[in-house]
Amino acid sequence: MPHITLNSAEPGIRGLLRYRPETARPLSDLCEVLLRGPSTLTRGERELIAAYVSALNDCRYCAGSHSACAAAQLPGGMATVEQVRADPAAAPVSAKLKALLTIAAAVARSGRAVTGEHVAQARAAGATDVEVHDTVLIAATFCMFNRYVDGLATTAPDDPAAYAAGAQRLVTQGYLPPAADPGHEG
Amino acid sequence: MPHITLNSAEPGIRGLLRYRPETARPLSDLCEVLLRGPSTLTRGERELIAAYVSALNDCRYCAGSHSACAAAQLPGGMATVEQVRADPAAAPVSAKLKALLTIAAAVARSGRAVTGEHVAQARAAGATDVEVHDTVLIAATFCMFNRYVDGLATTAPDDPAAYAAGAQRLVTQGYLPPAADPGHEG
Repeated sequence: MPHITLNSAEPGIRGLLRYRPETARPLSDLCEVLLRGPSTLTRGERELIAAYVSALNDCRYCAGSHSACAAAQLPGGMATVEQVRADPAAAPVSAKLKALLTIAAAVARSGRAVTGEHVAQARAAGATDVEVHDTVLIAATFCMFNRYVDGLATTAPDDPAAYAAGAQRLVTQGYLPPAADPGHEG
Repeated sequence: MPHITLNSAEPGIRGLLRYRPETARPLSDLCEVLLRGPSTLTRGERELIAAYVSALNDCRYCAGSHSACAAAQLPGGMATVEQVRADPAAAPVSAKLKALLTIAAAVARSGRAVTGEHVAQARAAGATDVEVHDTVLIAATFCMFNRYVDGLATTAPDDPAAYAAGAQRLVTQGYLPPAADPGHEG
């Protein structure tokens, strides 16, 4: 049961976005830009970073939701996501993405855990400065969302089908809330 | 030296906001709503939560910046901020704020570290559900900013006067970047 009385029965971040629309808007905008905006990282790769960090932070709702989003947009689907969550070094993803996942794992521990060597390895595998930047910010952003969702003890569905259905909506419609100002979405 | 080549010599978050305006906007909007928007917590109290979490995360830039913002807006100024950073239980702040700082410290460890007992103590000290919500989200947000700023190894001034000058600008002008769409600020 959530620590506070929400105004809906929606699970995880959805109930929190509904509860506090003033903060929902910049949080949704941030997800839309980072996970779906123009980037040389695919949407599937970015969702994978979000899912991986959420799993490291043991946030069941966010890990379930973003694993499903990654699976829907990555070659190999959920099998690839599960291999990354179990052992990124052995997973069937590019050397560049492995190096970026190493950076993301460091960010989950602490910003200070990211070393020049981590970044040099990513760069040697072909990562650009913007890709390193976005990886650090995606990882940091999910360190926020994971703490927000679990810090208020929101609920998380047990059924994988619930996450798959949510992912279908996010993949097709994005992160902007339906009530967002249309002028802002343009 | 930052891990990536930024497009300015600005320290900490400022250089990152300048580098990636697409993410700067929702990040700035989030700070403006959380730290300066309508709330039953004062701006000084909210900046104190941000400063306290940033110090726990050992983020020198964010701790310096938000300590200065808190000092400029709290009774007791920097002496109160320093007492909170050293030992919140003994600091000259309200029982409610002490209980909220305890929640913020738990969030810094993990969302799962926030207990029903923490929230019950805050409520017994007079905290509302929205205040608990906002405390969790402010703490989580600074777990993001701290990791973003340090994960890219941005620079941090040594001189306290630099943070005081930055705080003066934030206190009077807020977090929205000068280049923000005026139609969005209204």
